[in-house]
Amino acid sequence: MREVLAEAAFELFLERGYEQTTVDDIVARAGVGRRSFFRYFPSKEDAVFPDHERCLADMTQFLAAAEYAADPVAAVCDAARLVLRMYAADPEFSVQRYRLTREVPGLRTYELSVVRRYERTLAGYLHGRYAGRPDGVLRADVIAAAVVAAHNNALRSWLRSGGEGDAETAVDHALGLVLDVWGSATTTATTPTCDTAAATADDTSGGSAIGGGAQGDDDVVVLVTRRGTPMWRVVQRIEAALEPR
Amino acid sequence: MREVLAEAAFELFLERGYEQTTVDDIVARAGVGRRSFFRYFPSKEDAVFPDHERCLADMTQFLAAAEYAADPVAAVCDAARLVLRMYAADPEFSVQRYRLTREVPGLRTYELSVVRRYERTLAGYLHGRYAGRPDGVLRADVIAAAVVAAHNNALRSWLRSGGEGDAETAVDHALGLVLDVWGSATTTATTPTCDTAAATADDTSGGSAIGGGAQGDDDVVVLVTRRGTPMWRVVQRIEAALEPR
Repeated sequence: MREVLAEAAFELFLERGYEQTTVDDIVARAGVGRRSFFRYFPSKEDAVFPDHERCLADMTQFLAAAEYAADPVAAVCDAARLVLRMYAADPEFSVQRYRLTREVPGLRTYELSVVRRYERTLAGYLHGRYAGRPDGVLRADVIAAAVVAAHNNALRSWLRSGGEGDAETAVDHALGLVLDVWGSATTTATTPTCDTAAATADDTSGGSAIGGGAQGDDDVVVLVTRRGTPMWRVVQRIEAALEPR
Repeated sequence: MREVLAEAAFELFLERGYEQTTVDDIVARAGVGRRSFFRYFPSKEDAVFPDHERCLADMTQFLAAAEYAADPVAAVCDAARLVLRMYAADPEFSVQRYRLTREVPGLRTYELSVVRRYERTLAGYLHGRYAGRPDGVLRADVIAAAVVAAHNNALRSWLRSGGEGDAETAVDHALGLVLDVWGSATTTATTPTCDTAAATADDTSGGSAIGGGAQGDDDVVVLVTRRGTPMWRVVQRIEAALEPR
């Protein structure tokens, strides 16, 4: 029923314009009573963004499960990707809604509120992870805002292009800028130029290489990595190298 | 006249509550006609935030004059300080308004829109400064969001405290976190070198040793560790080595 109402609403918004469509028009198109609409949506705006509540709940659940993730910044980046996936699941609808939102000030304001709620959800997780750390709350707020801005930069480029190209790759790239800067292993964004010359492993794509000698606790493991490599990736590589072989 | 109206409005909001105060109440208190109100303010919300339009204009003007500032990130931090100064110029009013805004959803939404306009103003300046640079728009958007988040973290702490302490110092400290990470002092890195390929593995006590060459984005970090070293210690060492020196 919820989907039927959201679809009817969106059809009418595109046909007649958002302001010209009333809730009565929507329920007439959907073939239900007026009270059904307000059982599912608190307002007309909510029918335009029917999936954000579920996505916010998914994000909260994801972050609760990521309590002990190695890199808290990587965890919030992964959480932000849930939003992208929601948009990418239905490109045509997402692009049409983006265009509608550009035209209707009330929808832009609504969208701002939703974006703020995502940001507060990410910041809340980081508050917990940085608890007791000097400037923990400040750092959490700044990183959450940076993650949201990077995600939305890529998402909006994709929406503006009409849904062309691979949105996930674009968002990964954008979040990479934040991870490079704020991820636990790094100080600034990088464009690697020199090779990991002495690396004993043959991986040149990921930015780090690990070599190990004979097995045993006294073995020496040599990790060669660029300064810009995110900590989660370094840990991943070390863990792989240290696994019993 | 504008100030008389804003003061009358605010008095009434505090006395009766925001929702319970009509524009008619405000003009009656100010002793003017209804049309005068709408000559100065498009809506009741605008009367709560009478100075943002001027502050946005000041910010735009400031950034236009900062076109050739050495460090674009320092320039947007300075621009953000204009907002703080507006709040700090009248602590009592700012604190009362903050409390009112927390209670009235419509005012919170209005505030989000204003914050977004500041952010777009800062981002617009950075777009120009980073034009032609790879990921220039992405970088601009992320830095503008980080500056706004840092500024607002400090501003809101100060407002929550009832306007106690030195707001300027708090904002300086918060913006310092962004400047440290994004300011040109940290992004103009030294020439990348590959001369750290040989590990400086002289640490024999803790189980791991880290060597790094000149500071810069493309530095290679070499970690030598025994296979039995706990992961937390490896991460600790890497983090220490990667901290800005």
